[in-house]
Amino acid sequence: MGKVICTGLGPGDPDLMSLRADRLIRGAGHIAYFRKAGARGQARQIVDGMLRRDATEHAMEYPVTTEIAVTDPDYNRILAAFYEHWADRLAELAATDDIIVLCEGDPFFYGSFMHLHARLQGRVTVEIVPGITGMSGCWTATGQPITWGDDVLTVAMATLPEAELARRLQDTDAAVVMKIGRNLAKLKRALAAAGRLDDAWLIERGTMPAQSVQKLSEFEGETPYFAICILHGQGRRP
Amino acid sequence: MGKVICTGLGPGDPDLMSLRADRLIRGAGHIAYFRKAGARGQARQIVDGMLRRDATEHAMEYPVTTEIAVTDPDYNRILAAFYEHWADRLAELAATDDIIVLCEGDPFFYGSFMHLHARLQGRVTVEIVPGITGMSGCWTATGQPITWGDDVLTVAMATLPEAELARRLQDTDAAVVMKIGRNLAKLKRALAAAGRLDDAWLIERGTMPAQSVQKLSEFEGETPYFAICILHGQGRRP
Repeated sequence: MGKVICTGLGPGDPDLMSLRADRLIRGAGHIAYFRKAGARGQARQIVDGMLRRDATEHAMEYPVTTEIAVTDPDYNRILAAFYEHWADRLAELAATDDIIVLCEGDPFFYGSFMHLHARLQGRVTVEIVPGITGMSGCWTATGQPITWGDDVLTVAMATLPEAELARRLQDTDAAVVMKIGRNLAKLKRALAAAGRLDDAWLIERGTMPAQSVQKLSEFEGETPYFAICILHGQGRRP
Repeated sequence: MGKVICTGLGPGDPDLMSLRADRLIRGAGHIAYFRKAGARGQARQIVDGMLRRDATEHAMEYPVTTEIAVTDPDYNRILAAFYEHWADRLAELAATDDIIVLCEGDPFFYGSFMHLHARLQGRVTVEIVPGITGMSGCWTATGQPITWGDDVLTVAMATLPEAELARRLQDTDAAVVMKIGRNLAKLKRALAAAGRLDDAWLIERGTMPAQSVQKLSEFEGETPYFAICILHGQGRRP
């Protein structure tokens, strides 16, 4: 009887993977990972050169990504069927072997594996190996601490309504905003409304070779991929 | 010319250290770490058995911990002098050697090294190696994801005023509360006022051998050490 082990990969630099993740991945006979259909996949890329030659790879390709709105009932139906399918498949494989599922960042922090995790309960042993979050890689890249003393940190998605985003950015010491994508203009307006646009940093690919750190107010051009917005806390410091 | 490298140790289990942290620690000629005077020190304990035989250890012992209120001007003065002293000492050592500074969790996330980091700017090269946060170890220990979909996560200290704590716990999807110590009774009241006491978990020593996970409402006894309170988000899930 095998297990399904989902291991966090950390923020992108393979050297920031945990010892346990490294050992599990190098020893794995079965490796599964999510990716956009047709793409190489970020998780798969991080472990490049680490896999056993005889490892079997299971690419779990999302049937949809941004083509359908998340509010469309079809989106839920299609994704639910996709997760059902892969939960069944992983449970089947785990009858005889361990399967290592790759997850960027930390699996329980906005990770996709959670949708399989919920569907595997009671069917097979599931283990989670935490990882360094992407946001941690990003605030480290800014060279400044994210929180001091009694600072409040708010983590919010740029998909929230503009007024709510502005209210939350105003009512916190430190902030991390993720899922920026098409919401960059809205995020800029929300930061301005909160009086915090000038303090906001935009970090792309934190800890990866193409890492970029810039003031969000000065950012121009293409909507960044894998970007995170950071507001540093300014709390108590002796 | 050496460098000061502060490396995150992760949540406590040495196997959850990053590959980079592991390599730096095992190769270090100089190791520094904070600890309470007279105590062994949690950071030092995590690296037990990893240090070179000829490594020089620098125990940076806090001159005060909880004997003086953080609002007392003496607290600030005493701690500032302590950080000045060690910033000078590390800069001096870094003139000839690399020094590895140990930090539980992730250095830029409420870590003590930040106070040295600020004082070392412009004097010596400082590098930060991020780590898995203690909170990540704790939510992994609960066996449930902390955040889904567009959930808002609030990280707050139990040292906040009760009404503010209650307001923030009511106005978030997921929450992590740290620095519980003597504030446990206040935290319980704030959770009850926010209508969320029954959903709160108390995790002690997440990922460490003596790990404990229990409902906060059922917790009795001594104020726990290194404890974190977790409220799980319940966001969108296909």
